[in-house]
Amino acid sequence: MSGAPQPDLDLADSLFAALARATRLGRGIVRDSYGPGEQAAHDILRAAASDAGLETAVDPIGNLFMTLPGRDRSAPRIVTGSHLDSVPQGGNYDGAAGVVAGLVAVSALRRAGIVPKCDVSVMGIRAEESAWFDVAYVGSAGALGLLDPACLAVPRSDNGQTLGAALEQRGFDPQPIRERRRLLDPARIRAFLELHIEQGPTLVAQGLPAAVVSGIRGCKRFRNARCVGAYAHSGAVARPYRRDAVAATVALLHHMETVWLEQERTGADLVVTAGELYTDPAMHGPSKIAGETHFVLDIRSLSEPTMEEVAAEARAAAARLGAAYRVEIDLGAATDSPAAMMDGRLRGALLGRLERPFEMASGAGHDAAVFAKAGVPTAMIFVRNQNGSHNADEAMSLDDFAVGTRALLGLLQELAE
Amino acid sequence: MSGAPQPDLDLADSLFAALARATRLGRGIVRDSYGPGEQAAHDILRAAASDAGLETAVDPIGNLFMTLPGRDRSAPRIVTGSHLDSVPQGGNYDGAAGVVAGLVAVSALRRAGIVPKCDVSVMGIRAEESAWFDVAYVGSAGALGLLDPACLAVPRSDNGQTLGAALEQRGFDPQPIRERRRLLDPARIRAFLELHIEQGPTLVAQGLPAAVVSGIRGCKRFRNARCVGAYAHSGAVARPYRRDAVAATVALLHHMETVWLEQERTGADLVVTAGELYTDPAMHGPSKIAGETHFVLDIRSLSEPTMEEVAAEARAAAARLGAAYRVEIDLGAATDSPAAMMDGRLRGALLGRLERPFEMASGAGHDAAVFAKAGVPTAMIFVRNQNGSHNADEAMSLDDFAVGTRALLGLLQELAE
Repeated sequence: MSGAPQPDLDLADSLFAALARATRLGRGIVRDSYGPGEQAAHDILRAAASDAGLETAVDPIGNLFMTLPGRDRSAPRIVTGSHLDSVPQGGNYDGAAGVVAGLVAVSALRRAGIVPKCDVSVMGIRAEESAWFDVAYVGSAGALGLLDPACLAVPRSDNGQTLGAALEQRGFDPQPIRERRRLLDPARIRAFLELHIEQGPTLVAQGLPAAVVSGIRGCKRFRNARCVGAYAHSGAVARPYRRDAVAATVALLHHMETVWLEQERTGADLVVTAGELYTDPAMHGPSKIAGETHFVLDIRSLSEPTMEEVAAEARAAAARLGAAYRVEIDLGAATDSPAAMMDGRLRGALLGRLERPFEMASGAGHDAAVFAKAGVPTAMIFVRNQNGSHNADEAMSLDDFAVGTRALLGLLQELAE
Repeated sequence: MSGAPQPDLDLADSLFAALARATRLGRGIVRDSYGPGEQAAHDILRAAASDAGLETAVDPIGNLFMTLPGRDRSAPRIVTGSHLDSVPQGGNYDGAAGVVAGLVAVSALRRAGIVPKCDVSVMGIRAEESAWFDVAYVGSAGALGLLDPACLAVPRSDNGQTLGAALEQRGFDPQPIRERRRLLDPARIRAFLELHIEQGPTLVAQGLPAAVVSGIRGCKRFRNARCVGAYAHSGAVARPYRRDAVAATVALLHHMETVWLEQERTGADLVVTAGELYTDPAMHGPSKIAGETHFVLDIRSLSEPTMEEVAAEARAAAARLGAAYRVEIDLGAATDSPAAMMDGRLRGALLGRLERPFEMASGAGHDAAVFAKAGVPTAMIFVRNQNGSHNADEAMSLDDFAVGTRALLGLLQELAE
């Protein structure tokens, strides 16, 4: 063969265009988990994989595998990929970039006549986003036998169809999830590699096309936090008699910002966010003290002890400030998504393949975290992306995509030889 | 005559019962401004006044006058009363207590054979509440020629009918409002006295049946304040890149609480409230940094300079914190309702008539403030009320009402002799 295998960027470009054509609805992309949008993306990738001479297969819960067969087909395999669903009115690259990168990388190996020592599979993962069913990582966690079967009863946020019914309607089988049965054995995966657009502005700000991910932040989220005080007249009730739910909520959130700043000063990795906060519109009126607020408190860190400590402080502050403001602050149950560190050896190998090596934490969760937590050596590549993710304005240049994909391809070749 | 005139509490009791019967809708009271609920209350009071031998008259914009004629009918008169409308799902006493008190007090003068030196009129005022038309004090400010004629185009919040159309539908005439024509000359009113339930918890907490009002707090309200940042992923965006609208709004409101506490330490009268605060529900989703908030900032004080100073500090802090958090905080225009001090001589005379004299500021606005600002010597009596006002659970005991009404009757008699 003449030189190192190179990814076919024209193929990548035409796949992104086909995905956008098939799944754009209004301004944004709609690839609804287990819905027609996600299926359209699977159909496009599967056809392209067949054209490229890869084997294709679909597991019982709908994950797509596009495989370059290895010399020893019984050896533990290498898996690369990402998810093919999107949030409602999302962008074209969150998820799909990693599947397209895997496909053009593995196709390049095949075109170069390389027969790997083990199977190399590109995985088009189902239902990573929790926007549709309020369950994240359905495809990856389901394949690894890690899903709580109760999730099958979770209704889709827009039409109420349960996750179980959505699987069946598309011809898939919820039974493995019901039985927590593994479709993939972590011990039989040598490595899981995921390329994904960066969902924040760091690479844009740093002027870098791509980065290696050090780890994926865990998240403790108080999704149904509530403060209950008493509605009253804003003019007529003096401070000592107020039970102002907004004032108490503001005091709590301000305190959590102070806690964040203190943690940052000690060098801890942490972000704290209240992305939803609202008084009850039915009770709005001029001259009212608010009797109730609802809010979300989202605590993320690479460090489990940091998350634990900050969540405990949030609970303590809720009790303390609730008493001080004569209200009840109930943070409710926290949903937990543990932090996951990426594999040190794979991180090093990827860093060596970047012209300007740069490593950063991932704040968002990814399927890679599920594989890492299941014990699979895992690594991730971030590609620069303008305008953030989960919106119609995601923008990744093909040049930046090429930088990330070449690093992925290089590592796949190294692992497969 | 045998002794001092006494209010007929049985009459008061039966009037409150009749008002509740006629205007209760579900749990609460509905006396819609210039609607059938308010009209029913006017009809009940007018009939009772006729039965009590008082003259009745209705001005062109619907205010009801129930008059005990004086010896000199051309002399400046004494007016007492309050409003007969209520908020939607309000209580039985906010407003009506003052009209019933006036009626039983003036009836007592008449029954005692007292002919006052000037006319003494009980005024059943129209449309004090801004809940229906987003215009407050329509009856009192309209009668004094102080309304902005533009208010006639304001639509009713539930059915969209304009204030002007509502007046005409009920047979009244918007022309005086259109011309800013006075129906009452402040120079020809010797005093305006208003009894009203307290709308806060102070008298309940103090264990007192009634109080004299020192003054009515003014209000500067930023009703359409907004903070615009940028939506982004809560995990993926580090602090330096965030444009978090909730964090900025929390910082501003926390700062305003600090300002309030500092003002209180200097002895200033002040309350600061954000009764509405919300992120956009259409943009809610897990893992989001909020890109926008809407909120109301309500600043009240007996002192105009205090309100000015605190509003200026709010504007300065909005600019400063907007820059610090990389967002735009736009407080928008403030609606102004100036503070009004009550007449010193009348306050003293009322205090002398309470067994346990107690004086307090009114946080809510009242028709009395309109008369005071027009130059009429004005005083107010607060009657203890459980459970706050503007809700179905308002509760005033007839005993407490009697304490306030006796003080009113005593002052009316003193002024009329």
